[in-house]
Amino acid sequence: MECVRGFVCLVLLTVTSSLTVVESWQSEWSPSSTVRLDVNTHSVQRFPGKETERDDFRLLLTEDDSMLVAGRNTIYNISMVTLEENAKIEWAPEQSHIDVCQMRQKTPDECQNYIRVLAKKSRDTLFVCGTNAFKPTCRTYNQGEDGSYQKTHHKDKSGTALCPFDPSHNTTAVYADGKLYSATVADFNSRDPLILESTQMVRTEQFDSKWLNEPNFVSSFEKDDKVYFFFRETAVENINCGKAVFSRVGRVCKQDQGGNILLYNIFTSFFKARLNCSIPGDFPFYFDEIQSTSEVGKGNYRPTYDSGDRSDMVYGVFNTPQNSIHGSAICAFRYSDIIRTFEGRFKGQKSFWHNWLTVPWDDTPQPHPQECSNSSRKLPDNTLNFIKNHPLMNSAVPASGGAPLLVHTSFNAQFTKIAVDWMVHAADEKYYDVMFVGTDDGRVIKAVNKGGSAKIETVVIEDIRVFSPHDPVTDVKVFRDKAKNIEKLIVVSKDNVVSIPLHRCHEKKTCRSCVELRDPYCAWQGSSCGNAERGVQDVDNGWSMTLDPSCQDVTIYDDNKKEQEVTTPAPTPAKCACPTVKGTVGSPSIGPRAGQSSEETQDATTAASASVETLAIAIVVSIVLSMLIGFFIGYKVAGCRGNRDSDASYLERTCSLQRSRNRLSSGEHPYYNPDHTIMPKQMNYVVNVKGKLNTASVETKPVTKSNKVYL
Amino acid sequence: MECVRGFVCLVLLTVTSSLTVVESWQSEWSPSSTVRLDVNTHSVQRFPGKETERDDFRLLLTEDDSMLVAGRNTIYNISMVTLEENAKIEWAPEQSHIDVCQMRQKTPDECQNYIRVLAKKSRDTLFVCGTNAFKPTCRTYNQGEDGSYQKTHHKDKSGTALCPFDPSHNTTAVYADGKLYSATVADFNSRDPLILESTQMVRTEQFDSKWLNEPNFVSSFEKDDKVYFFFRETAVENINCGKAVFSRVGRVCKQDQGGNILLYNIFTSFFKARLNCSIPGDFPFYFDEIQSTSEVGKGNYRPTYDSGDRSDMVYGVFNTPQNSIHGSAICAFRYSDIIRTFEGRFKGQKSFWHNWLTVPWDDTPQPHPQECSNSSRKLPDNTLNFIKNHPLMNSAVPASGGAPLLVHTSFNAQFTKIAVDWMVHAADEKYYDVMFVGTDDGRVIKAVNKGGSAKIETVVIEDIRVFSPHDPVTDVKVFRDKAKNIEKLIVVSKDNVVSIPLHRCHEKKTCRSCVELRDPYCAWQGSSCGNAERGVQDVDNGWSMTLDPSCQDVTIYDDNKKEQEVTTPAPTPAKCACPTVKGTVGSPSIGPRAGQSSEETQDATTAASASVETLAIAIVVSIVLSMLIGFFIGYKVAGCRGNRDSDASYLERTCSLQRSRNRLSSGEHPYYNPDHTIMPKQMNYVVNVKGKLNTASVETKPVTKSNKVYL
Repeated sequence: MECVRGFVCLVLLTVTSSLTVVESWQSEWSPSSTVRLDVNTHSVQRFPGKETERDDFRLLLTEDDSMLVAGRNTIYNISMVTLEENAKIEWAPEQSHIDVCQMRQKTPDECQNYIRVLAKKSRDTLFVCGTNAFKPTCRTYNQGEDGSYQKTHHKDKSGTALCPFDPSHNTTAVYADGKLYSATVADFNSRDPLILESTQMVRTEQFDSKWLNEPNFVSSFEKDDKVYFFFRETAVENINCGKAVFSRVGRVCKQDQGGNILLYNIFTSFFKARLNCSIPGDFPFYFDEIQSTSEVGKGNYRPTYDSGDRSDMVYGVFNTPQNSIHGSAICAFRYSDIIRTFEGRFKGQKSFWHNWLTVPWDDTPQPHPQECSNSSRKLPDNTLNFIKNHPLMNSAVPASGGAPLLVHTSFNAQFTKIAVDWMVHAADEKYYDVMFVGTDDGRVIKAVNKGGSAKIETVVIEDIRVFSPHDPVTDVKVFRDKAKNIEKLIVVSKDNVVSIPLHRCHEKKTCRSCVELRDPYCAWQGSSCGNAERGVQDVDNGWSMTLDPSCQDVTIYDDNKKEQEVTTPAPTPAKCACPTVKGTVGSPSIGPRAGQSSEETQDATTAASASVETLAIAIVVSIVLSMLIGFFIGYKVAGCRGNRDSDASYLERTCSLQRSRNRLSSGEHPYYNPDHTIMPKQMNYVVNVKGKLNTASVETKPVTKSNKVYL
Repeated sequence: MECVRGFVCLVLLTVTSSLTVVESWQSEWSPSSTVRLDVNTHSVQRFPGKETERDDFRLLLTEDDSMLVAGRNTIYNISMVTLEENAKIEWAPEQSHIDVCQMRQKTPDECQNYIRVLAKKSRDTLFVCGTNAFKPTCRTYNQGEDGSYQKTHHKDKSGTALCPFDPSHNTTAVYADGKLYSATVADFNSRDPLILESTQMVRTEQFDSKWLNEPNFVSSFEKDDKVYFFFRETAVENINCGKAVFSRVGRVCKQDQGGNILLYNIFTSFFKARLNCSIPGDFPFYFDEIQSTSEVGKGNYRPTYDSGDRSDMVYGVFNTPQNSIHGSAICAFRYSDIIRTFEGRFKGQKSFWHNWLTVPWDDTPQPHPQECSNSSRKLPDNTLNFIKNHPLMNSAVPASGGAPLLVHTSFNAQFTKIAVDWMVHAADEKYYDVMFVGTDDGRVIKAVNKGGSAKIETVVIEDIRVFSPHDPVTDVKVFRDKAKNIEKLIVVSKDNVVSIPLHRCHEKKTCRSCVELRDPYCAWQGSSCGNAERGVQDVDNGWSMTLDPSCQDVTIYDDNKKEQEVTTPAPTPAKCACPTVKGTVGSPSIGPRAGQSSEETQDATTAASASVETLAIAIVVSIVLSMLIGFFIGYKVAGCRGNRDSDASYLERTCSLQRSRNRLSSGEHPYYNPDHTIMPKQMNYVVNVKGKLNTASVETKPVTKSNKVYL
C-alpha cells in the first residue's frame, strides 16, 4: 500500500521539517540554506571570492594541488586541498581603457579585465592575457618564494589574436613546447576567427569559410607532435541543405612554420573532422553543438577487469541547437580514432555548384598531408594548394561505443561540462570511468556506463544539486591527492568555487542501501559503507537476492530506519495537533454517546460532557490539522516524483531513495519500466544502447536508477 | 497558504473517492471505469463495435450525419447523431486467400480484410477496396431504401495499386470527378509506391527516387482542377547531407492523361513541394514528418473580427523522427500558399555530382509546367523531359504565421491527428479556428491561437483524456448539425469510436471560472456558463480585474464551491474516522484534564474517564487516519502537478483547475512563468511566437493555461 509507505515518509518529514521553512525555501533558492540539512557540510568547501561583487570565475589551469582561477580583474591561486587562497593577482584595466571601451558602446561590465589565457612558461613564470576593457593585453608574472606573484619589468604586450576583445567570446589556448597556441578572434567585432601559434605568428587562413566558419572554440590539448582544438562551427559542407552547426576537432603540427609563397605564415597542417555524437539508426539523430570536453586521460568508456585495457580518451558534452527541443549528450572519443580519421580521405567540392564528396586517393597528395613535415616551407605547391582547399576530412570521428553514453532532455537544463575520474577501481574488480556532468541549472550528475560488452548501459548514480537552479555549472574537476588521501570534485560556477566529495557512501547505513547505490566508489565492508576496493558491491545489478548472504538480512525499508537514526526521535502526530486545540473556538456539538448512563450526577455529566465536547473539538480539530499536515506532506512527497528538473527541495532528499524503491516495486519507477516500449513519464535520462548492426534503429532504454542529492 | 487550498481539495476528494478504487484504477486503465466519476456520461457516446475481438476502426468517409468506419472485415455506417449503427457490410477474405496469405509468412491478424479505400460513386453506390488477406480487391455495393448495402453483381476487381497489400502501409485515396485517385504501393513488398488515376491508369514514374522516395501517404483532397496529396518521404535533395525525411504536398491535374512517347501513361503534372513546419531562427528547427492533416476548410489561423477574413486552409500534424527527441507540432497552411509555391521555380540537380539548386526561369519551360494542360499527350518533348527531371519545387510551402501553432515535446506522447472547428464565433465577437489534436496516448488537446497580430499565442484550453494511455487517437472529427442543434467531437482509436462534447462550459458555475477557461465556446450569460455568442468572455486574457463588474464579486476559489455543489454533501472528516475507532485495540492513555473537578462521583468519573479514554483513542486514531488520508490525497493532488503525461487519474480532475490557480498565483504555474527565460519545469506545450524578422532566434513562450479533463 502506497499509503503505508507514505506514512513512514510522513513521520520522517514531520520530524525533519517545518512547513514555513520549506515553503520559503521553495520560493527562492539561497546558498545560505545549504547549511540547514546537510549532514556533510564539513566535507563541502567553498572559496568565497569577492563576496560583495560579481566574481565571474573561470577555472583556467591546475597544477599539482593548486588551481588558477580567473576572476574579474583578478587571478586567484587556490589550494585544491583547502580551497583557500594561496596568492592573488589584481589586474584591472586602466581608466583610460575603460573610458575608450565605454565610448564604444560597451557596458561597464564588459569594460573589465577578464583573463582568458593563462600559461605557465616555466615553474615560476606565468603568462597572462585578459580582455582588458576590449583592449586585449598580455603580461608576465613571476612567482616568488612565498608564492606571491610579481609583474615582470617587461612592457605589457598586445593580446590581439591571443585573447578575444569580447569577454563573451569563447577562447581556448594551450602552451606546448615553449609556444602558445590560441584559438580565438583577432578583431573587435569577432569577425576574424583564427588559430594562432604566437611565436612564429603562424595562423589559419583568414576569411576562408572552408577553414573556420563562425567557430566557437571550446577546448584544446597538445599531444605528440600536434595541438588539437575542439570547436563547433557552421558546417560549410551542409550549407546546401540548410544552415547547421557541426562539432569539430581540428589540429595543427607543432613544427608547422607555414608555407612558402602559397600559405605564407598560414598553417600547412590545419585539418578538421566532424565529431559524430549521435543516436545511431537509419536516420541518426545528431547532438551537433559541442560545449566542452573533459581533459584527455587514459580511460575506457566501458568497464574492464584489466587496468591496462585503457587508451587516451576525451569525453565531450554535446547539445542540440538552442532553437530546438533541448537535448544534451555525453560522447567519448578515443584519441586513436581521432588520429585514424585524420589519416583518412578528405572531403572536397569541385566547384561551388558541386556536392561535397569524398576526394579519391588518387587526388590526394603523397605523403598524406596530415603528416607533420619538418620543413613546411618546402612543401610543393600542389600539396599546399590541396591543403588550402581541403581542410575537412571525409569521415567523422566516431564516438566510442557508437552512441552517446548519456542523453538528457529537458526544457530547462542542458549539460555544460564534464569531468571524468578515470578508471576507478571498484570492489567488483572492474575499472570504471566515472563521469561528473555539470548542468546549466546548477546540478552535477554522476554516472557510469556499466555495459560490459558493446552495449552502453549508463547508470545515473547521483543527481547532485550544487548551486541554485539559476547558477550554471561552468566547470568540474576531479582532484585527487593520494599522499594526503584527499579526493574531491571541484565545481565552479560564475560566482562559486566549491569542492564536494566524490561520493556519499558513508550516508548509507545498511548493506542493502549501500549496494543499491551502484556507486563504483562505495562498497559495504564490515558494518559500514565506504570507499573501499573490497566489500559487497554490484554496480551491474544493484542489490538483489542473489547477493552475499550477509547483505540479505536487512528489512526492506532500511533507508528509513537509517534516516530515523540520524534524525531526532519522532514525536507522535497527536502531539503536534493537540496543543493547538485549546485556542480554537466553536465546534460542531456531538450528542451523548450511546450506552452512556443517565444515572450519572448532574455535575459529573456536565464535567464529562464538557470533556467529551472538548475532546470532540479536539478530535475534529486534530483531524483537520492532521489531514492538512498529511495533505501537505503527501503533496511534497509526491513532488519527489519525477520532478527531476524542479527547483530542488531539501524535503525531497529524505524521500528520494524511499520513493525509488516504491516505484520500482510497483512498476512505476521513472527510470525502469521494462514492459513498455515507450518511455516512462518525465524521463530525463535515456541511455542509447548500441543496436545490432543491422537494426533499423537503436534500442533506447531508460537508465535504471539514480539518487537525488542535495548538498 | 497552499495547505488551505489543499484542504478544500481534500474534502472534495474524501467525498468522491475511496482509496482502494483509485489505487486499482491507477494500476490499470480500463474503459469501464469511464462511467464512475463522470458527471457528463450522458453526453459521451460510444459505438461498441465488436466487443469480443479487435476492431481496427478507421474513419474513412463522412456524409451528412453518417460516417463510414472501416473495421476488420467490416464496414460500419454509423450515425454521427446517435453513434448507433445504421448499416453494416461484412466482407471477410475467402479461406483460400487466407491460406495463401499465411503461407507467405503473414500472421493471422494480417491475413484479414482491412478496408482502405471507400468512395461514394453516386448517392447509393459505394466503391470499396480492402487488403483482403494480402490480395487487394475492390467491390461495389448498392445502398437500398432501407439503408442496407447489397453487393452488386459485378465480379470483384483487383485492388492492386488502389489498396496496399499490407494493412500497416499508409494509403490515401480520393474520388474526384468520377475518377479515383489513390496513393499507395502497387506490390506485395511495398517497394513500388505510386499515385494512380485508376480510370485511365495514369501513374507516377516508377522507381524514380526523384518522384517518390519511400513515401508515406497521409491524406489527399481535390480542389479546382487538381488533386493534392500530403506525404512524407526520404528527401532526395538532402541525401548528400545525410538521410532525412521531409514532408511534402504533391499534386496532379485531374485531366492529365500522361505524355505521348515520353511519360506514356505517366503524370505530366506531378509536382511536389516541401512543407515547412519549423521553429524559425538563424538555424530553423524542422518538424519534418507529417502525420496527418485536417480536412480543408475555410478558416484563419489567427482570430479575426471579420467572418469573411478567411481562406482555404489545411492544418497538419508534424513530428520529429522516431530516433530523436520526440516532438510534435501543428502547422497551418493556406491553400493559396500551396498554389503559389507550385507557381514558383523548380529545384534541380545538373548531375548526380552537383548540388540541388534553383532552376533559373530561363531553363523553365513556358507555359509553367504546373498549369493543367487539356491535352497532356500533346506536350512537347522538352517540356516532358523537364517535368520528368524536375518534380520538386524550389521553395517550401510556408506555414501560416511562419511558425508552428503548437509545439509539444514529451517522451511518451506525440500528436497523431487534428480536427479544426472553423471560425467559431465567440462572445468576444472574434472568430477562432479551434484545434482538436489527438495524441498517441489517448488524449485530445483543445487549443486556439489567440494571437491577434502576426504573433502566434496559442492557448491550450483543455487536455482531455479520452482513451487509455495505450490507445492512440487515430482520428478526430468535428460534427455539427445546426438543425438538430447537435455539435460534438468524434474521436476514434483502433478499438473505440466515441463522441464527446466540444466543450464543457456548463461545468463552470461561476462567472470567473467560466471566463478563466478562455474557451471560445464558453461565455457567462446571466447565471450560467454556456455556449453562447453573447456574454462575458475574454479568450485573450482570461479572467482579470478589468472585466465586467458582474464578474468580479466572486470568491477566489469559486471552483471548489462549484465542485462542492455538484457533489454530495461533504461529511465531516470525523465521520470517516470515528466508525473505525471502535474496532481498534489499545491506545496511549491520557490523564485527567487539568481543571477537572475531583468532587465528581466515582461513577461519573469512571464514565467520564472512560469516554475521555475512548475519545483519546478516537483522537489518536483519527489523527493517524486523517494524516494518512491527507497524505494520500496530498500525494495525489501533487500528482496533478506537471504530470501531463501521466496515466490519467480521475482524481486529478477534481483538482486540476484548483491547482492551476494555486500555481499561477505562486509563480509556479507550469504554463506561465514570465520572469524566466528558461522554460518552467515539465513544460510540454510551447508556442513559438514569430520573432521580429531580424532576430537571431524566435521567442519561445509557454502557453499560459490549460485544463485537464477526464471524461
